[in-house]
Amino acid sequence: MKDLLMHIHPLRAHIEEVLPLTDQEFDFILSHFTPVSKRKHQYLVQEGELVNKEHWVIKGCLKAYFFDQNGKEYIVQFAMENWWITDYEAFNNQIRASFSVDCIEDCELLAIDYASREKLSSEMHKMERFWAKKTKLAFIASQKRILSLCRNTAKERYEMLLNQYPQLVQRVPKKMLASYLGVSRETLSRL
Amino acid sequence: MKDLLMHIHPLRAHIEEVLPLTDQEFDFILSHFTPVSKRKHQYLVQEGELVNKEHWVIKGCLKAYFFDQNGKEYIVQFAMENWWITDYEAFNNQIRASFSVDCIEDCELLAIDYASREKLSSEMHKMERFWAKKTKLAFIASQKRILSLCRNTAKERYEMLLNQYPQLVQRVPKKMLASYLGVSRETLSRL
Repeated sequence: MKDLLMHIHPLRAHIEEVLPLTDQEFDFILSHFTPVSKRKHQYLVQEGELVNKEHWVIKGCLKAYFFDQNGKEYIVQFAMENWWITDYEAFNNQIRASFSVDCIEDCELLAIDYASREKLSSEMHKMERFWAKKTKLAFIASQKRILSLCRNTAKERYEMLLNQYPQLVQRVPKKMLASYLGVSRETLSRL
Repeated sequence: MKDLLMHIHPLRAHIEEVLPLTDQEFDFILSHFTPVSKRKHQYLVQEGELVNKEHWVIKGCLKAYFFDQNGKEYIVQFAMENWWITDYEAFNNQIRASFSVDCIEDCELLAIDYASREKLSSEMHKMERFWAKKTKLAFIASQKRILSLCRNTAKERYEMLLNQYPQLVQRVPKKMLASYLGVSRETLSRL
């Protein structure tokens, strides 16, 4: 009875949105991940440090950001439940991070290191396929962000964010939304 | 003797930079592609149209671009030999293109349609892996472009382009480089 009431593992549910897994396959996948708990304000990636882990968000909200020479913060990306986050250039090329990632809320995450990710995707076509699809979506999202940085006003970008991620706009402090949109806190209030 | 003098197919050389292939595997892969020749100024993707093909560049140079409401051209991306290009959001979601792609020079390309790409990558782990790596690199490049749009001056972005793709800067008209960098032709001359 207890088994029947148990929920499916959230990572399994997430992967199975793309393709089905057997119990055995999921156990094998999960064995490559390590649970990580972080408190609000703790970091996952620190600018200038080596990056050996990619994280999947079970619960919580994070930001990827850097400061320019004048100490102005730029937010590159947010992440919430079911999103994957790291500095991919640093992770992929095993070099030092060019931005930081830290927690806007207390976070529960699953971490996978570079060697485990390579092993898992080369041994298991399904995981290669799953990550290929996720990377494709991330690439498309970043292409859209480039287009919108060139094409749209801050007001339009705010409306797009509101339409696409209403929950994010609720959860993230207005000051950070302003940094993401590249406007001042005062301009954001007027939007 | 003739066989000995024949060059390896450029697509095979390109894929084998990531992983080795047997002759049989490469013949199977190549059977999914169609050769395409385009003259300078002809387009591959037209804004507003459905996009059913991804292209790999054997020879030539292309630009992905759109015009804003004031008729100002924005260049999203260039492509040269060994690059893959399409409107990936439109191709992946089988929706209408949000930008155009056309030829800056006469181009020789290989085209693959959506169904063939899906079939090839689901039947052949090696091709899934190859495209996953290429998509990862494209994602990293677009993340860097977002960072540099936020972080760097036009002068710095021009120097980065010059360092990374000296050949591109030679081949592409200055007016287009200016559109890519988001500066006027006059500003670019001063850089």
